[in-house]
Amino acid sequence: MTIETFKAKPKISIKHGVVEMNHGAGGKAMHQLIEQLFLSAFDNEWLAQRNDQACFTVSNPRLVMTTDGHVISPLFFPGGDIGSLAVHGTLNDIAMAGATPLYLSAGFILEEGFPLRDLQKIVASMATAARDANVCIITGDTKVVEKGKGDGVFITTTGLGVIPENVRITHTILPGDKIIVNGFIGDHGIAVMSQRQNLQFNTHIVSDCASLHELTAMMLETVPTLHSLRDPTRGGLAGTLNEWAEQHQVGFCLNENAIPIRDAVRGACELLGLDPLYVANEGKLVVACAPADADTLLASMKAHPLGTNAAIIGEAIADPHHFVQMKTSFGGKRIVDWLAGDQLPRIC
Amino acid sequence: MTIETFKAKPKISIKHGVVEMNHGAGGKAMHQLIEQLFLSAFDNEWLAQRNDQACFTVSNPRLVMTTDGHVISPLFFPGGDIGSLAVHGTLNDIAMAGATPLYLSAGFILEEGFPLRDLQKIVASMATAARDANVCIITGDTKVVEKGKGDGVFITTTGLGVIPENVRITHTILPGDKIIVNGFIGDHGIAVMSQRQNLQFNTHIVSDCASLHELTAMMLETVPTLHSLRDPTRGGLAGTLNEWAEQHQVGFCLNENAIPIRDAVRGACELLGLDPLYVANEGKLVVACAPADADTLLASMKAHPLGTNAAIIGEAIADPHHFVQMKTSFGGKRIVDWLAGDQLPRIC
Repeated sequence: MTIETFKAKPKISIKHGVVEMNHGAGGKAMHQLIEQLFLSAFDNEWLAQRNDQACFTVSNPRLVMTTDGHVISPLFFPGGDIGSLAVHGTLNDIAMAGATPLYLSAGFILEEGFPLRDLQKIVASMATAARDANVCIITGDTKVVEKGKGDGVFITTTGLGVIPENVRITHTILPGDKIIVNGFIGDHGIAVMSQRQNLQFNTHIVSDCASLHELTAMMLETVPTLHSLRDPTRGGLAGTLNEWAEQHQVGFCLNENAIPIRDAVRGACELLGLDPLYVANEGKLVVACAPADADTLLASMKAHPLGTNAAIIGEAIADPHHFVQMKTSFGGKRIVDWLAGDQLPRIC
Repeated sequence: MTIETFKAKPKISIKHGVVEMNHGAGGKAMHQLIEQLFLSAFDNEWLAQRNDQACFTVSNPRLVMTTDGHVISPLFFPGGDIGSLAVHGTLNDIAMAGATPLYLSAGFILEEGFPLRDLQKIVASMATAARDANVCIITGDTKVVEKGKGDGVFITTTGLGVIPENVRITHTILPGDKIIVNGFIGDHGIAVMSQRQNLQFNTHIVSDCASLHELTAMMLETVPTLHSLRDPTRGGLAGTLNEWAEQHQVGFCLNENAIPIRDAVRGACELLGLDPLYVANEGKLVVACAPADADTLLASMKAHPLGTNAAIIGEAIADPHHFVQMKTSFGGKRIVDWLAGDQLPRIC
């Protein structure tokens, strides 16, 4: 064996290869996987430091950090895949603090036997989502578990963002505050459910998976003192409002007729015995604002492509029981309680 | 049903309970698990914000970010568990940039059926490790996958740290640089291997799992212009030096007699057919420094409890092949190549 072949590093076969245990062992195979699959896709100056950490400087001292594990099943679904979801989901949690996302880290837990071409698709999708949002994936990690100890790919993304100086979200919700959503709810959950092996049904619904930080930046330019922002992912709109009710010691009164839900989502929900209020979203936000700001805010949201179908759906009310109530289409009232069971497992 | 019982939140049974799918669904069960198990253990002002992200301010613009997935098996091992490991491992990657760790995020991927009392032990261990290191776990996430789609608990931790103003790591390695380790290598890998079901053997070796940021702070106070720092985890000392060789276009010449290895580790390695140079560490660092600084640096390391057994183990050399060579105890020379296979799967 010559010295050259001894140190040679053949290209890994992405077309035919699968994840092997030694891709996680800290040796040559792992090094090759990282160089040939991850670094080339995420290419940026911080990854190019090729250290176990990324160093950078920030000019604004107000920072935001968030983390999200992604275990969605199936990995590919109409409107996205686990890669784009992992980027959008984390950027959105940054955006909900009124911050501009700057950097992401990505930790991969791979199952032995997973096709490298699928991994490459997922990584390419992450890279595109990050590039579109003008953020860089600056550091990462790869672990491999034995076949049957994972499920293809899990991705945990952590995001760091800066809060612009003028932004003054109060992080309160007061009785009288108006509640606005930026569009149709339930699309993500139904799009993913339509792909589940035991549930496949025909629908044209695609996930609403999108990065909301440009929309929130526009909203905060219009109203820098928004009261609260949250993205209703797992647990849906009902989950978010119940969390807020408990956190801010208020109740909510929703107007069912005002909540934007596509007919196709409503139909699929009826078919599956689901309530769209509990179905996950990945490109939606709920915002609470002072009543005087509501119309201006709504107009600014409607001016953005991700807010075209925005609507005021209700308001916060004084309620010692912290209930989320809804005026139904039929003129009645019902309580929208916490989700007790597991409506849609592994939806994000 | 009265209004009170309707909104009541019974305590989850940590003693007898297990992780259920609805602990990951975004509803009441998840909320309870987070409140009663995670928030109480990690208790701090940022988690108390109870948002999907944590906001904070930093006073120093030079930051470091790193992420690590932890899939170690078994979850509990002599000298630690996946919880303490997840904290130490990430803090060490921060420390290797010469930074002071500030904040951590933690993403949990739980397998349905995992005992909550084991989860509580792991969470308590993380909380202790973080408190001892004076850092806070400020944001987190919990996902649940079906039985057979995970393996108990996976934890992905991301760390953020600040680089003090005086620190000037050059991030270079030049021929002539001295290479120092802070103590015995291979303890972690052997301690974990001793607990593997199919390998159980008798040893008193415990993992070296520890946070190194105080040691690195002392080292950098003595020599602010260290050349490079890295923690030799997966892939061991051999992995780190081969990465450096390629990254910095140098070779290394090690002196086998100088490398601190416990007799018990050497014995276990012989038994298992392993080379201690490739065995993982979780409380060790390798540092490259200018030859003129080596003795001062070594003395400062020896003054810290985590550096008592520090030793100069070799030096960087000019080598167009970027080989890691070692002068053996018998007076010969051998090449310490990249680990090709998977010596110790799921060691961190």
